[in-house]
Amino acid sequence: MRNLLVKIAYDGASYHGWQIQENALTVQEVFQNALHTVIDERVDIKACSRTDTGVHAREFCISFKTESKIEAERLPFALNNYLPRDIAVFSCEEKEEDFHARYSCRGKEYAYEIWNSKIRNPFLDRHILHYWYKIDENKLNEAAGHFMGRHDFSSFCTLDKRDIGDMRRTVTEARVERAGEKVIFTVTADGFLYNMVRIMTGTLLRVQEGKLVPDDIPLIIEAKNRAKAGPTVPPEGLYLNKVFY
Amino acid sequence: MRNLLVKIAYDGASYHGWQIQENALTVQEVFQNALHTVIDERVDIKACSRTDTGVHAREFCISFKTESKIEAERLPFALNNYLPRDIAVFSCEEKEEDFHARYSCRGKEYAYEIWNSKIRNPFLDRHILHYWYKIDENKLNEAAGHFMGRHDFSSFCTLDKRDIGDMRRTVTEARVERAGEKVIFTVTADGFLYNMVRIMTGTLLRVQEGKLVPDDIPLIIEAKNRAKAGPTVPPEGLYLNKVFY
Repeated sequence: MRNLLVKIAYDGASYHGWQIQENALTVQEVFQNALHTVIDERVDIKACSRTDTGVHAREFCISFKTESKIEAERLPFALNNYLPRDIAVFSCEEKEEDFHARYSCRGKEYAYEIWNSKIRNPFLDRHILHYWYKIDENKLNEAAGHFMGRHDFSSFCTLDKRDIGDMRRTVTEARVERAGEKVIFTVTADGFLYNMVRIMTGTLLRVQEGKLVPDDIPLIIEAKNRAKAGPTVPPEGLYLNKVFY
Repeated sequence: MRNLLVKIAYDGASYHGWQIQENALTVQEVFQNALHTVIDERVDIKACSRTDTGVHAREFCISFKTESKIEAERLPFALNNYLPRDIAVFSCEEKEEDFHARYSCRGKEYAYEIWNSKIRNPFLDRHILHYWYKIDENKLNEAAGHFMGRHDFSSFCTLDKRDIGDMRRTVTEARVERAGEKVIFTVTADGFLYNMVRIMTGTLLRVQEGKLVPDDIPLIIEAKNRAKAGPTVPPEGLYLNKVFY
């Protein structure tokens, strides 16, 4: 039995997230149907994570075991023929038998992107958060630095039954940078709680508004209380950038 | 009577071009309705050009005369409240009485953008042409250089009753550059014939395919025969970048 790792990218604007659900179109459903058409076999697919409605992925990893004889390097092109234009498969490789897209994952990088201009960007509708007031990216970068390290991130998690258990995660990178009118918050960790990046971003924007100062971040982490952090920002600015194995 | 110049940007993917028409949604119709709501006056609006279905604009200029007392700097924000997210007004200025968005225009810059990769870009669906085979941008840049100067561009024009008359135009810039997986053809001229940039791009891609060589371009221009040039490439890669007054 072969074990394949497929990497895809998708524009999440038209989908109700990754995970299959009744009565709503998801990336998983569309991908599975294309895979079934190509390998003529219904397989159990494992994914690196879930993404919420409207969230995007520049790299999203899927593994599955198959009896199919299709060459790994041919699979992306075959699948892309059966996928809509907002989902693209860009690689496929053979993995060892015990590889699992979710359990073998050692970490992920997310980006939250903000269009910081008085005028919205008509080309990035549903692909960026529009924020009108001039952002002080250095101040936000100072605040983001406090996310680094191993912490209990309960304050940065929407309660959900998935998250009962250990709420500690190790953040190895957290920075805010400006690229013209874009302000990008990039964060890497060994794992993420539900809505963690969107709540972190909402908290950074509270610092921008002057309602918090950078040094408040350690106190919010310590409080382990969702109410102390900022709001959950909308999904359209969130990108799963990279998955580490 | 004031004469105002308004600059907008739009994502043309959802529109049947700029110019108002029956039974199809156009940018002009949407813009005019927003303007009517804001200034409470039906005005005759002049535009720098038309764009075709699916073509985009990073800068598109509109002028109109009005009795409205609204301050020029307030108008963009007022209009943006009534416009969909794929159309954005970014400036408004007072002009002299004889200014006309079309007749005062001295030139325009267009870009045709190509995603040059074996894998399509899911984020640029309807915003770029996907071209699979590796493009030699230096060769295409050499070919594009032959467009420079004042020529009769009949070979690069879809016949249309608008274009009866002088077919000469002066191209002051024509270059092909690569930016990662994007290949961009940028062309500036004092005016453009119907489909001129899309036929120029189709002809450059014939050079890529080896069916033409760069030195064929002057011969195609000289022929004044549409059949000698390459095909009209699809609209989704075309951007009106700048308008010069």
